[in-house]
Amino acid sequence: MMNDMKPIALDAMGGDKMPQAAIEGALMASQEGIPVVLVGKEELLQKELASRGAELPIHPCDDFFTMEDHASDVRKRKGSSIMVGMNLVKEGAASACVSMGHSGASMAAALLVLGRIKGIERPAILTNIPKKDGYVGLLDAGANADCRPAHLQQFAIMGSVYAQTFYGKAEPSIGLVSIGEEEGKGNDLTREAFDLLKVTPGINFYGNVEGRDLLKGTTDIFVTDGFTGNVMLKLAEGEAKEIFSWIKDALTNSGFLVKIGAALVKPALKKLADRMDPYEYGAQPLLGVKGYAFIGHGSSDERAVRNALRTAKRSVEADLVARITRGLEKLAATESLA
Amino acid sequence: MMNDMKPIALDAMGGDKMPQAAIEGALMASQEGIPVVLVGKEELLQKELASRGAELPIHPCDDFFTMEDHASDVRKRKGSSIMVGMNLVKEGAASACVSMGHSGASMAAALLVLGRIKGIERPAILTNIPKKDGYVGLLDAGANADCRPAHLQQFAIMGSVYAQTFYGKAEPSIGLVSIGEEEGKGNDLTREAFDLLKVTPGINFYGNVEGRDLLKGTTDIFVTDGFTGNVMLKLAEGEAKEIFSWIKDALTNSGFLVKIGAALVKPALKKLADRMDPYEYGAQPLLGVKGYAFIGHGSSDERAVRNALRTAKRSVEADLVARITRGLEKLAATESLA
Repeated sequence: MMNDMKPIALDAMGGDKMPQAAIEGALMASQEGIPVVLVGKEELLQKELASRGAELPIHPCDDFFTMEDHASDVRKRKGSSIMVGMNLVKEGAASACVSMGHSGASMAAALLVLGRIKGIERPAILTNIPKKDGYVGLLDAGANADCRPAHLQQFAIMGSVYAQTFYGKAEPSIGLVSIGEEEGKGNDLTREAFDLLKVTPGINFYGNVEGRDLLKGTTDIFVTDGFTGNVMLKLAEGEAKEIFSWIKDALTNSGFLVKIGAALVKPALKKLADRMDPYEYGAQPLLGVKGYAFIGHGSSDERAVRNALRTAKRSVEADLVARITRGLEKLAATESLA
Repeated sequence: MMNDMKPIALDAMGGDKMPQAAIEGALMASQEGIPVVLVGKEELLQKELASRGAELPIHPCDDFFTMEDHASDVRKRKGSSIMVGMNLVKEGAASACVSMGHSGASMAAALLVLGRIKGIERPAILTNIPKKDGYVGLLDAGANADCRPAHLQQFAIMGSVYAQTFYGKAEPSIGLVSIGEEEGKGNDLTREAFDLLKVTPGINFYGNVEGRDLLKGTTDIFVTDGFTGNVMLKLAEGEAKEIFSWIKDALTNSGFLVKIGAALVKPALKKLADRMDPYEYGAQPLLGVKGYAFIGHGSSDERAVRNALRTAKRSVEADLVARITRGLEKLAATESLA
């Protein structure tokens, strides 16, 4: 193998379009030089690979989580694809684990197997939201429905490191999602978090941001609890989809001239709609665990899988986990001085 | 006066474009037969009216809240336009009070002067969010940053009555904003609220709804705490504005043929963008107070003022407050039986 990187373990079983989408996506990634090992039912995967005349390494396992299963069962199901994948990371046989399956099970497996970075009480999902000329990072996008102020402080540090790594910003701005721009506006959680963020070392705290700031990209990172963050993520995705479908209807159910116009503007609109596509980033990192775990949409297609593997590779190469660990050490040093 | 309805008190001072927008909007409404009384500085208002060769009744007062003032000062500033307006409602001299000024002061004044309907602990702001063929009601859109499960139950009853009145639905569906569709998904607040909503008399509880359901209009009413609701409202508004501005850029910074196409589709896109305009409804009712109080955007223009006065008139004619009161009595009767 040309590449020094250990392969990325891809859970080839969990997700609506698996294993086909996993195999197609893995083959695309593989052609780009991204090393992948498929985790799942050996016979099934071999058959799918053979039908494509392709080869990929397989780490066999028979069990996997369906959407009807309970995340809390990960402890009992050590032989499931998501648990096997995470263990490959822990043992150093894989550099990262990517799954498009049961999100709750993936988070639980990552937490159980990889453990938390020192100073992180709650790992968080970071999601990339498109702005006009790039992305903003929103976290937590759903890992923790109920949060305390200190959790938001930890999210801010992780988000800051992420934006430095992925958005190429030396001092990324961190916004706290609230209602009202001024300090003191918000709910009990955000008011206390504001006080913590003001004095957090190593971050560039902007202050409160509001819902309207998200797509404007007022700050590089939007910090919030996992309930609000998940509502925002799904609203942002759903609204884009809805508006573009309204536009399509408006342009096709109109008169002749509008139809001509629609045909002319279609490529430009399509390009915009694609930017709003949640599969663009493929999968979201679970930040705060000791290792690389990525969680994608259950409905991911092969392009999303390919993109997820790219994101995983980039994170590993950027040494994201070590950077987050150092960010947390800075906070701990300040706190022990205080 | 042809109309039996008492005039609607319009705070002509609070808001960015006041008093001009108030006067223009009030004149438009007046021509439609909506009775209005302007509340504000008499000399200033007379001058503005005279310059338009128009006449409208004025209830004079000299003080008013600017955006820099503190809502908590309403008690001390009984002579402010918002307090005078609310008192006109309380005394029966006005049927409703509409303000585009300081939202916090408007809420505080309404609560202080009008008081709460029996069974309502926290009045809530209901906002209309456009869906493809109508609106959905989202509450609380920002009056209460921290809520308890019983507050959400009260919001559900008020929202249900509102949807019956304004959306013409006999049994409007009520969704609880959460993360995950299944019962049990969400945070501590929504899980407890779910249990209450399941057994609330007189409402058609659908279950959990997610961020993506909002513009799809999965339910007629979306119930949530005022923090989440305000974030959702501002995200929904901001995203629509952002997407339409991206589209405009994409279509104008393109080649010749796309520009031709853009010219042909412009009217259809404009119509869609207008539907997403938050001024369409003009102002949002504060539900749960004993009287009619409406709160609009600080940046409202004359059209928003006119629309707000229309919404106020329609609410008064529909006897919305009495209907909400009866809805709460139904809940109280069930609870006393339990």
